[in-house]
Amino acid sequence: MLNVEKEFFSNITFRERAIFEGAISMGALFHQFIGTPVNKETVNSLELAIEKSLSLQPAIEKVEVDINLDILEREISEFEYTSLTGDMIDVKIYSKVNKTLAIIRMKFIEELNYPLMFIEDIQEDINENIQK
Amino acid sequence: MLNVEKEFFSNITFRERAIFEGAISMGALFHQFIGTPVNKETVNSLELAIEKSLSLQPAIEKVEVDINLDILEREISEFEYTSLTGDMIDVKIYSKVNKTLAIIRMKFIEELNYPLMFIEDIQEDINENIQK
Amino acid sequence: MLNVEKEFFSNITFRERAIFEGAISMGALFHQFIGTPVNKETVNSLELAIEKSLSLQPAIEKVEVDINLDILEREISEFEYTSLTGDMIDVKIYSKVNKTLAIIRMKFIEELNYPLMFIEDIQEDINENIQK
Amino acid sequence: MLNVEKEFFSNITFRERAIFEGAISMGALFHQFIGTPVNKETVNSLELAIEKSLSLQPAIEKVEVDINLDILEREISEFEYTSLTGDMIDVKIYSKVNKTLAIIRMKFIEELNYPLMFIEDIQEDINENIQK
Repeated sequence: MLNVEKEFFSNITFRERAIFEGAISMGALFHQFIGTPVNKETVNSLELAIEKSLSLQPAIEKVEVDINLDILEREISEFEYTSLTGDMIDVKIYSKVNKTLAIIRMKFIEELNYPLMFIEDIQEDINENIQK
Repeated sequence: MLNVEKEFFSNITFRERAIFEGAISMGALFHQFIGTPVNKETVNSLELAIEKSLSLQPAIEKVEVDINLDILEREISEFEYTSLTGDMIDVKIYSKVNKTLAIIRMKFIEELNYPLMFIEDIQEDINENIQK
Repeated sequence: MLNVEKEFFSNITFRERAIFEGAISMGALFHQFIGTPVNKETVNSLELAIEKSLSLQPAIEKVEVDINLDILEREISEFEYTSLTGDMIDVKIYSKVNKTLAIIRMKFIEELNYPLMFIEDIQEDINENIQK
Repeated sequence: MLNVEKEFFSNITFRERAIFEGAISMGALFHQFIGTPVNKETVNSLELAIEKSLSLQPAIEKVEVDINLDILEREISEFEYTSLTGDMIDVKIYSKVNKTLAIIRMKFIEELNYPLMFIEDIQEDINENIQK
């Protein structure tokens, strides 16, 4: 049986791998779900599906997605829905490898006109699991 | 106020528009959600989010998505999930314009090695609404 | 060998099928490519890839994609690119079944705040092929 | 003017940021383009559009995409194209922050039935730019 850790990840630290896996999932989340039709009635089911699907990826302990209802309403079309865009979503992805937890954040920064992805917090020596 | 029906859809019949709107949503569904991480634990939330988001589009009355668990299990990776592919999903989209209901189907046809989209049924003179 | 026309499409006319196939491809195009990173330097390669990939679908003779450079520039971020959105793209898809040609259009309509898909023109008794 | 480095990235090293940015782009690439219609005639334009669009993201110096023609042919449908899947693509993303270059790889690993993303190489003290 292939030893994935030894074969593919022995060149980076646990901390680096926590960053790596969390970042992959954040890039994945944005590009999988941007464009999805959404309105106030469907926002909860969409947030849940995003959270559950991305939580399946390696090292991901929890995903929190918050779609901003004010921006959603502002963008609503004559057909009473709109497409999910990067300025509407605020996301936290908790990625844990061994005892290192990285919290990756995506947040729209007006000054940059850009949904910036960055590392909100990184904690080493974590013993408990994150509650999903 | 712009009269969408008159301005943009007076060149086709209600029956043609039911086909048109249902077909758009089927193409949208496939290309929005193919690639999403999924396993048996998340399949219900994904089906629900797909159904609810596509139901927002013009003329769509109901969307039924069925992800095949046998194919899902067959494709499962060492990381205990896989990506949604066209051979796993069977979809019905109910599109209604005036009194014409078109039921658009996507189904994987082994002989074609292709997720074929076709019109499963088309009914004219429907008076009731479809129950979502 | 499976007769696709007879088995799956004998319940609709050639005209209806031209509408059906063109509409699928328009829905597909939007939901496959919305969200793609783009700027002025990459707009041509993106337009070409969209046109070529969607032209592969059944009955599609030609796809013309025009990404609006003014809107692109207006949306540009501090990182000198943006994500493709529905208000930037104007698309024509030429779908032909037997002798009927349907030209499907997607165009952002400000008054609706919506990238509307409609049938721009439909011609019966066309004998030549469309030049790709 | 917002100082992005200081405000958002002072909690990680240049090496960690090279890993972070490369990983985001790899996750993005997979989930943006999986599902795209493709055959032998369109493979080059698709590879190019993927490479150019992802090269726009922060810290990305170069992207190399190789779509496997043998797997593509094996998956081809009766309609003479197929949808891009994770087992067909081999990707290298070169991400550089200050003097650290991370080469992120995605490669389908049969034994895992999974398109694994990992860090193929990481070099510190690089002085030249990568040629795009």
